[in-house]
Amino acid sequence: MSKPEYAIGIDFGGTSVKMARISREGKIEARADFSTAECNGVEGWLAAVEKRVAELREGAQDGAVELGIGVGIPGFVDFDRGFINELVNVPGWKDVPLGDFLRARFGERIAVDNDVNALAAGECMFGAGRHFQHAVFVALGTGVGGGLLLNGKVYRGAYSMAGEIGHMPINMEGPQNIMGKGGVELYIGNRRLIERAQKALADGRESSILERAGGQMEAITPKIIAEAAADGDALAREIFDFAADCLATMLSGLTYALQPQAFILGGGVAAAGEILYAPLQRHLAERVNPIFLSRLEIRPAELGTDAGVIGAAALIFSSINA
Amino acid sequence: MSKPEYAIGIDFGGTSVKMARISREGKIEARADFSTAECNGVEGWLAAVEKRVAELREGAQDGAVELGIGVGIPGFVDFDRGFINELVNVPGWKDVPLGDFLRARFGERIAVDNDVNALAAGECMFGAGRHFQHAVFVALGTGVGGGLLLNGKVYRGAYSMAGEIGHMPINMEGPQNIMGKGGVELYIGNRRLIERAQKALADGRESSILERAGGQMEAITPKIIAEAAADGDALAREIFDFAADCLATMLSGLTYALQPQAFILGGGVAAAGEILYAPLQRHLAERVNPIFLSRLEIRPAELGTDAGVIGAAALIFSSINA
Repeated sequence: MSKPEYAIGIDFGGTSVKMARISREGKIEARADFSTAECNGVEGWLAAVEKRVAELREGAQDGAVELGIGVGIPGFVDFDRGFINELVNVPGWKDVPLGDFLRARFGERIAVDNDVNALAAGECMFGAGRHFQHAVFVALGTGVGGGLLLNGKVYRGAYSMAGEIGHMPINMEGPQNIMGKGGVELYIGNRRLIERAQKALADGRESSILERAGGQMEAITPKIIAEAAADGDALAREIFDFAADCLATMLSGLTYALQPQAFILGGGVAAAGEILYAPLQRHLAERVNPIFLSRLEIRPAELGTDAGVIGAAALIFSSINA
Repeated sequence: MSKPEYAIGIDFGGTSVKMARISREGKIEARADFSTAECNGVEGWLAAVEKRVAELREGAQDGAVELGIGVGIPGFVDFDRGFINELVNVPGWKDVPLGDFLRARFGERIAVDNDVNALAAGECMFGAGRHFQHAVFVALGTGVGGGLLLNGKVYRGAYSMAGEIGHMPINMEGPQNIMGKGGVELYIGNRRLIERAQKALADGRESSILERAGGQMEAITPKIIAEAAADGDALAREIFDFAADCLATMLSGLTYALQPQAFILGGGVAAAGEILYAPLQRHLAERVNPIFLSRLEIRPAELGTDAGVIGAAALIFSSINA
């Protein structure tokens, strides 16, 4: 009988760092989390991680083989070197050779990647994408991120920055930001959905959204809008219909460029369910030729709140398969 | 000394079929063309091809090894089987197992692919893309086509239909056709450029375009518009500026999705030179973040009118490298 194998996954978030020992089959065997605020800068973070790695290794089955440690990072990473340029949401993380630091402490098998690529790797290996060789993972939340699974592997592009699908334009004269003009994220990021609701309410539209937010405009969230939509609120449904159409526009572009077998939708907005999926399918049918559409599936992500740590471990497993 | 190797490339066009014996180094050793009208249906085409294959083989150096026969097809092909669903522009080509037919006549090493994928393979192996591992070939002509080189190989997607970048939307409420809404081809295909000129002239715009077309609205071509633009004609320059901006919009989407090292521009419109490249670079700078832009090159295709046959042969060479 072959020895059991595992990897340690680290999901580095702005508020907490989640760590887990993950079996080769993608199951969580043990967890060890800590608060990002608990540690002081990079050195403090490494010390906190070292302590948990020791605990997680300690608890492993006798004879089990550790295949490596994977980390999902909230920002751009040069994947080959594991080098972090800057984490905008975590103070003190600028020009950090995290891959080198981790290798010096924990051994050679280290993978450091963007958190959305880690999610994509996890969903594609153990979640909704496990039956596909070609899939695009779409993370819908504060922003819109993505990860590409091509020929069964995460595709990172020339400089580890592929998959930034939230900046794909859906209107050439759309709103401008540092990434360009008319990027889909500028239409369907969480903030934009909330603003659409606020504006309509300020214009006097009837809706249950404001009441659900306790009468506070600033308390409106995508979740509240989704709940209102599920209950049939017309404004909320319009907002989701528009978001679905924007998303369908971007997905149609990816379909023609890459022809994946599936799009896997994850993140908070994707959890809205039929409120999002029904109009999304309808708009995709307007935007994608039937020959392409019939060969395309839309699936919700399956790994839920564990997606980050499982995905981080999947970075290791998928690099070993390569 | 190792034996010289070659492949036979077949560039199957709507009016003529170009064939050539191509050395492993991408050089044309001999040619043998025939008119598409000369042959009657699939059987006639195969007979005409058989005759030229015999000639091309005959002339090969003593001891030279034929690696296979590659064909670029003007339409969708199931690459794995070499199966053609339908050629819209060539009567009698419907549900043709061309790969099987060719293998029965010429041996096992046959590659049948979409003509734009063949161009992409050729440019990426022997032309402007030969120094890149990740590049997107963009064919600008009657329509807008594309081919993806990822990790040094042509990427074909789930069902051999990837690279249909002409249908990527640049405006979500743009003009509609069977492929969707607002696809870039609906803005910058040859026909659209001509229509823009015709409309402006009909509206009374001053321009040298009409005179260059001998006073005939229907004689206007993209080449005439390009010549007018090169001579400083304001309307012609506006038309190319707009086309460049539309193209930049689509390329920005591909940049964020795939992060290629380069875009290789081929086809008639791409031959316009600085009239296209100068505004394209300017608009890309508005549409792509500097970090991405600084790592991206725009290159004209290099193989010219031989691109089709060289590309068809490259389908064979690249499958052997795989």
